[in-house]
Amino acid sequence: MNAHTLGTVGIIGNGSWGTALAKILTDNGQPIQWWVRNPEAVQHLQNRHHNPRYLTSVTFAPELITPTDNLEQVLACDTIVFAVPSAYAHEVLDKTGKTIWQQKNVISAIKGILPESNLLLNDFLTEKYGCDLNRYVAITGPCHAEEVAAERLSYLTYSGLDDTLTGNVAKAFSNSYIYTTANHDIWGAQYAAVLKNIYAIGAGMAHALDYGDNFLSVYITNCYREMYRFLEAHFEKVHPSNEHPDFHTSAYLGDLLVTCYSLHSRNRTFGTMLGKGYSVKAATLEMNMVAEGYYAARGMQHISRTFDIDIPIADAIYSVLWEQRPAADMFKELEKTLS
Amino acid sequence: MNAHTLGTVGIIGNGSWGTALAKILTDNGQPIQWWVRNPEAVQHLQNRHHNPRYLTSVTFAPELITPTDNLEQVLACDTIVFAVPSAYAHEVLDKTGKTIWQQKNVISAIKGILPESNLLLNDFLTEKYGCDLNRYVAITGPCHAEEVAAERLSYLTYSGLDDTLTGNVAKAFSNSYIYTTANHDIWGAQYAAVLKNIYAIGAGMAHALDYGDNFLSVYITNCYREMYRFLEAHFEKVHPSNEHPDFHTSAYLGDLLVTCYSLHSRNRTFGTMLGKGYSVKAATLEMNMVAEGYYAARGMQHISRTFDIDIPIADAIYSVLWEQRPAADMFKELEKTLS
Repeated sequence: MNAHTLGTVGIIGNGSWGTALAKILTDNGQPIQWWVRNPEAVQHLQNRHHNPRYLTSVTFAPELITPTDNLEQVLACDTIVFAVPSAYAHEVLDKTGKTIWQQKNVISAIKGILPESNLLLNDFLTEKYGCDLNRYVAITGPCHAEEVAAERLSYLTYSGLDDTLTGNVAKAFSNSYIYTTANHDIWGAQYAAVLKNIYAIGAGMAHALDYGDNFLSVYITNCYREMYRFLEAHFEKVHPSNEHPDFHTSAYLGDLLVTCYSLHSRNRTFGTMLGKGYSVKAATLEMNMVAEGYYAARGMQHISRTFDIDIPIADAIYSVLWEQRPAADMFKELEKTLS
Repeated sequence: MNAHTLGTVGIIGNGSWGTALAKILTDNGQPIQWWVRNPEAVQHLQNRHHNPRYLTSVTFAPELITPTDNLEQVLACDTIVFAVPSAYAHEVLDKTGKTIWQQKNVISAIKGILPESNLLLNDFLTEKYGCDLNRYVAITGPCHAEEVAAERLSYLTYSGLDDTLTGNVAKAFSNSYIYTTANHDIWGAQYAAVLKNIYAIGAGMAHALDYGDNFLSVYITNCYREMYRFLEAHFEKVHPSNEHPDFHTSAYLGDLLVTCYSLHSRNRTFGTMLGKGYSVKAATLEMNMVAEGYYAARGMQHISRTFDIDIPIADAIYSVLWEQRPAADMFKELEKTLS
């Protein structure tokens, strides 16, 4: 195979997003090797053709999926779809050598920052493993997995530097219920996806603190303004001579809206629990998962300092998540800065 | 009194928005003359100190309100707050002479276009009545009246050319649950308020047609892009040398969000009924009101042609509202143009 086509495809991760991506690919006739950590889930997929825990309504064509708990087997594929929560990405990366990643196309469905290194997956792979950035494509967009399972029309954005590869990846995921677009904005699209999870935690907190719809719309508007300025300033620093893409599109504003407003949003739910007085630990236990925005808040602290771009709303949410600041106090101060 | 201060204040209109504005002003100690069309509602306000039909939970300080069905009496005030639906504005204007309006400060709380003339209220007053545009202030922002009644924090924007008057008006409406900002963007702020009602009808239709949260976020994002481009192009035509205000603020994006997402939104509800197959007439009867976006869709057709600025999403919604195009067909075509 050449580096511009997908070749054989492996998916790492069987959470709801990984399962949704597996559904899209197999609905399009693409066979997949699928790394599923838990042997019982492997058996369930093999024998009963659906994931026992996530998107359980989705039935897979048995001839198109090869579920396995053997990571090496999946990593033998030409193209790897990386779909684990960012907090678990290092566990997978550490099990493998550098060299294996240098020979792959990597499609990232991670909407977070690797917590150990405070890096996006592409920056980790290029800086630490010497991978070729041209072989990396990020998937973003407002796409709650539950709606993919129900085949409700959704829009995904594919960001990569190599137009042919990016176009081929986007095509592999396009069908009657998934419309795709492609752009070159690897960093911006991923930072938007990271920031929106932080802001959605704040939206949940505001909701729990009994702010109303009027306030929520103003809060989200101000989050978009902050996101827009961050993306614009970051783009200016890394591509000073180019024009940034239109951020009033699905991968940027769209993803912010669905994550802040939808009841499917885990980050919003996590924020609602914190706003009602749960501790981070209690909320995590209750939800049986870590909301992406939790680590993202810490990662973006680091990144905003590195690039010297202010993100005061994300900072305020960080102070509640990581410095035990009461959410009500934080919002009392924040509300005076909104417009 | 001089033209830069409010002097005596009259409110025209006792719908939910007029009642909310009366509450804010009287909570701030401002006495008001209040034109209430229905004599029984006048009596109810006089004797029981609340509006019998809208925001019935709000109790008014009897010494601060003078409700009356005598329009002349209210029009004797120095400053008039115009808070009737745009469809009824002409009925009020026709009852009075031109000259009376030339001597007033006018605060417009109308979020629509006058259907008879396809003009914003300020354009009508200046073009037809020769009023002074410096004495006009528009109130916009995401502010469902029900949340004002409950004193949940909301943000209002005051747009006017005279800084002193605009500042004084904004101050008269500021308190612990209403934060205000001022700008000069009379047309942009009002066009944003008009467009958002049209888009919210579309959001309701999409919801009724069983599109999900992912799609809705993309639809609203594309509406914002269209609104942004319209406002930017319009501003460029009328103020070519100035910079337009930041549209990622409460009066622009914020108001779009609350109107498209909130269950308080009458325009969204109207759209939901149309999407479920109600006719415009049946939906209007059922809601006992005309949704602002209905006439706004026709008015913006006219305005977009006048200024030669395309608004294809608003056009598509117009085709359902005024040309009997089935909403499902319209969305099937529209969905292919979103990104």
